[in-house]
Amino acid sequence: MIAAAPAGVHVIPGHPIAGTEQSGPDAGFAELFHNRWTVLCPRPSEDPAYAAAVERLTRLWEAFGAHVELMDERHHDLVLAVTSHLPHLIAYNIVGTAADLEEVTEGEVMKYSAGGFRDFTRIAASDPVMWRDVFMLNKDAVLEILGRFTEDLQALSRAIRWGEGDKLQELFTRTREIRRGVIAAGQESAVPNFGRDLPRDS
Amino acid sequence: MIAAAPAGVHVIPGHPIAGTEQSGPDAGFAELFHNRWTVLCPRPSEDPAYAAAVERLTRLWEAFGAHVELMDERHHDLVLAVTSHLPHLIAYNIVGTAADLEEVTEGEVMKYSAGGFRDFTRIAASDPVMWRDVFMLNKDAVLEILGRFTEDLQALSRAIRWGEGDKLQELFTRTREIRRGVIAAGQESAVPNFGRDLPRDS
Repeated sequence: MIAAAPAGVHVIPGHPIAGTEQSGPDAGFAELFHNRWTVLCPRPSEDPAYAAAVERLTRLWEAFGAHVELMDERHHDLVLAVTSHLPHLIAYNIVGTAADLEEVTEGEVMKYSAGGFRDFTRIAASDPVMWRDVFMLNKDAVLEILGRFTEDLQALSRAIRWGEGDKLQELFTRTREIRRGVIAAGQESAVPNFGRDLPRDS
Repeated sequence: MIAAAPAGVHVIPGHPIAGTEQSGPDAGFAELFHNRWTVLCPRPSEDPAYAAAVERLTRLWEAFGAHVELMDERHHDLVLAVTSHLPHLIAYNIVGTAADLEEVTEGEVMKYSAGGFRDFTRIAASDPVMWRDVFMLNKDAVLEILGRFTEDLQALSRAIRWGEGDKLQELFTRTREIRRGVIAAGQESAVPNFGRDLPRDS
C-alpha cells in the first residue's frame, strides 16, 4: 500500500477501536466513534508534509467524536492482541467447545446461556473472514499473549484441582478493579448486564 | 440441609439461571426472572407429598415469569459447568492475564477495551467468594469441560502458528449459528453490542 501510493499521497496506518459484531455500511450508527479511541501508527518520517497529514487525520477522527493515540506498530500489535484479538479467539473457542459436547446439547447451551455463556457468543458472531485474516497477520503477538493466557489458566486449573480457594478468591477480587477502571475510562456501560435485560423505554 | 429438614419439609435443590454481575437484595429488579430458566433437581422419592411440593415450587417460579426444567444432579453440574462456570473462569483468567502484562499497562487495557476485552470484564466483576465456592464444589465437571476447552484452544493455537486459515474460518462460521440460536431462544438481546452503546432514550 505504501509502495503503491502516488507522490504527494501520505499513507498513515491506523484504525478505530469501535464497532459491533455486525459488518458493512448498514452496521454503522451516529455514535459509533463517540468517546472511542483511534490508534494511528505513523511511518518514521522527517517530512513536514507527512507530519501535517498526521495532524489533519487526527482532527478528522476527533471530528467523529473519537480520541486519537499515536503508537509504534510493534506496540500496537501487542496492545490489540490483548484487548481485541485474544478476547475474540477465546470467545470463538469456548462457543466451539460448547457446541461439540456430546452430553450437553446445543439446545441446552442456548437455553441456559444467561448464566454467562451468552456474553461470549456476541464476539463469536463477528465476521469469520476478517478475523481469520487478523490471526494470520498478527500471529506473533497473538501467540505470545495466548501463551501467557494458557499458562495462567493452567495455574487456575491446578488451584481448582487441589482446592486452593484462596488463590481463586485473590484473582477474582483483583479482576473487579479492572472492570471499575474500564467503566471509569468511559469505555463501558455501568448498567448491570450491559443494560440488555432492561426494557429499552424505561 | 436435607438431613436437617424437619418432618413434612421437602428439600428441592435448584436455582434460577439469571442475574447480573451485582449481588445482594439491591441488585434485584422486577424483570430479573422473566423468560429465564430455573433448574430444579428433585431428590429421588416415591412420596406423593414430595411430588406435590415440586409441583408447587414449579408454579411459584412460573409466577415470577420463569420457565422451569427438572434435571438430575449430575447433568445439572455438567450443563452449568459449560454455560456458566467455564465462562466465568475464562473471563477471570483473561482479565488477570491482561492486568499482569509488563509491556501493556492496565491503563491501556482499559482505554482500548472496546475491541472486545470489555465484554469479559462484566462477569469477571462477579462476587469473588461465591465464585470461589462454585469452583470448589463443582470441581469435577469444571475440570472436565476446562480440559476440552484447553485442547480446542491448543488446536487453534497450532492453526495460527502454521497458517491454517481455513480451520479458523470454519470454526468462526460455525459459532455464528450458536449466537443466532441464543437470540432465537429468547436468552439474549439482538441489538448490536448488547445495545449498551446506544443512548437509552432513543
